[in-house]
Amino acid sequence: MTMLVVGSVAQDTIHNHLGTHPYIIGGAAVFTSLSASTYGPVQLVGIVGRDFPPEAISMLEARNVDLEGLEITDGKTFHWEGRYSDDLSSRETIRTDLNVFADFRPKIPERYRDTDYLMLANIDPDLQLDVLNQVREPKMVVADTMNFWIESKLDSLKALLERIDVLTINEEEARQLAEEHNVVTAARALTGMGPKTVIIKRGEYGALLFQGDAIFSAPALPLTDVRDPTGAGDTFAGGFLGYLASEGFGDDFETLKRAVIHGSALASFCVQGIGIERVKSLSREDITGRVNAFRRLVSFS
Amino acid sequence: MTMLVVGSVAQDTIHNHLGTHPYIIGGAAVFTSLSASTYGPVQLVGIVGRDFPPEAISMLEARNVDLEGLEITDGKTFHWEGRYSDDLSSRETIRTDLNVFADFRPKIPERYRDTDYLMLANIDPDLQLDVLNQVREPKMVVADTMNFWIESKLDSLKALLERIDVLTINEEEARQLAEEHNVVTAARALTGMGPKTVIIKRGEYGALLFQGDAIFSAPALPLTDVRDPTGAGDTFAGGFLGYLASEGFGDDFETLKRAVIHGSALASFCVQGIGIERVKSLSREDITGRVNAFRRLVSFS
Repeated sequence: MTMLVVGSVAQDTIHNHLGTHPYIIGGAAVFTSLSASTYGPVQLVGIVGRDFPPEAISMLEARNVDLEGLEITDGKTFHWEGRYSDDLSSRETIRTDLNVFADFRPKIPERYRDTDYLMLANIDPDLQLDVLNQVREPKMVVADTMNFWIESKLDSLKALLERIDVLTINEEEARQLAEEHNVVTAARALTGMGPKTVIIKRGEYGALLFQGDAIFSAPALPLTDVRDPTGAGDTFAGGFLGYLASEGFGDDFETLKRAVIHGSALASFCVQGIGIERVKSLSREDITGRVNAFRRLVSFS
Repeated sequence: MTMLVVGSVAQDTIHNHLGTHPYIIGGAAVFTSLSASTYGPVQLVGIVGRDFPPEAISMLEARNVDLEGLEITDGKTFHWEGRYSDDLSSRETIRTDLNVFADFRPKIPERYRDTDYLMLANIDPDLQLDVLNQVREPKMVVADTMNFWIESKLDSLKALLERIDVLTINEEEARQLAEEHNVVTAARALTGMGPKTVIIKRGEYGALLFQGDAIFSAPALPLTDVRDPTGAGDTFAGGFLGYLASEGFGDDFETLKRAVIHGSALASFCVQGIGIERVKSLSREDITGRVNAFRRLVSFS
């Protein structure tokens, strides 16, 4: 089964309780691809400038991420700089340099167009739609979005929702998009807009999976060594997609539940490292151990 | 097994999206007692004024709550008035009339002093200590507290912590008391202050149970018909205590996990009614059905 991930490839400058981490590799497509690549080969579509480090290219390729779809162009790579509060409970953006990302028009290589599992990471919904017009018959399309697009491109976002299978979205943004505070009512309103399955991401409180009347609640692993939450949501999406791809189609609720736990397991590793530090070196064994920790955390007799 | 609950008995005036509910029966000891009484007989120690409705007395007695310890004195019953935001995510206190509760000095009837399970609901820690000095050898002491006592009576609170088995506390207040943002580190700091077991209550995100290195995560049931969150934490404590009392001692982690789920089940009923409306009429069958709903919500194969 092939997986295709479309989204941002970035360099992040992160200030947190552990210091300043300048120009480390980041971006939703990178976190998602590295996470998904634990389960199988991944194709990435994104754009970077000529400053993007060759070591990062080699690292991604060594992790089974196909970079034929990574456009390298004149200019600088997308750069985000932010500062986390000491307890990591909030962050502020210091600057966003879109650079070459401002002109990103995803071009899906011919070889990628028959992909089975497609992750549309958080980008302009018009570009997400454009990707959908370039692929043939994916078995499953997962998309993420954010408040910026809800506020500025609602019509395009609604058109997108009609064409995807799974929406992953933060709790606050789910409320905003559904115009509904209650999280269950909000999730059901979102499934009414198109996606059969909705996953509400709640950060340190875990995630909720909705499909029809069924609900599954996944916890977050309570950790003492959280270093950097950057990319945790994208890493979650990669684990979710990767598990489903490794299992075959997997649209039944039991398989989706396990996929959410795998996503949560990957995300729990992500926050234990700075940037992609931890995600880039995970094995299937690491994941299995962590999935078992999730099982112990919630099971009762 | 006998259960003793000490705490506030009140009349609440609640303004919410459903209207104004004037002078309805409330108070931590009432929510906890009604919840615990689903499992067995409960003894209540509290204080009310002569205005306390005789129907409320009859209702409590019919629910197996022993009121020998309820002092009825000249003056008015403790009255709290508050307004919830339309989405129930926040509330403001409009007025607090302590009335006879200002002079509450818990007197434990002789007949209650050999109680097995003791719940010290959220009152002045000096009074909680005073209760401990009046009982003989309870098998388990559970206590709750709040930011007001952390800020005004920290020494007494710390003396209390050394003498209790289980602390139930809201997430924000756990952070405040432990002076530690990370919830795991905070919980471990709190167990270091005395109680072997700590339960962090997270409202609509559920609860975390800590004992030694073991952690259990209980979800909250995602509900579409939340009417009134008042008393949910106290109702949780009643279900927790009631289940343990019905099971015998129950200090092992597996039993504590089930007790947390029972507490969560009771709390999920509580929020579906205004005040005690739903809690006062629950059966063991209702609880069993809801515990199974919790199991379905978190289990994965």
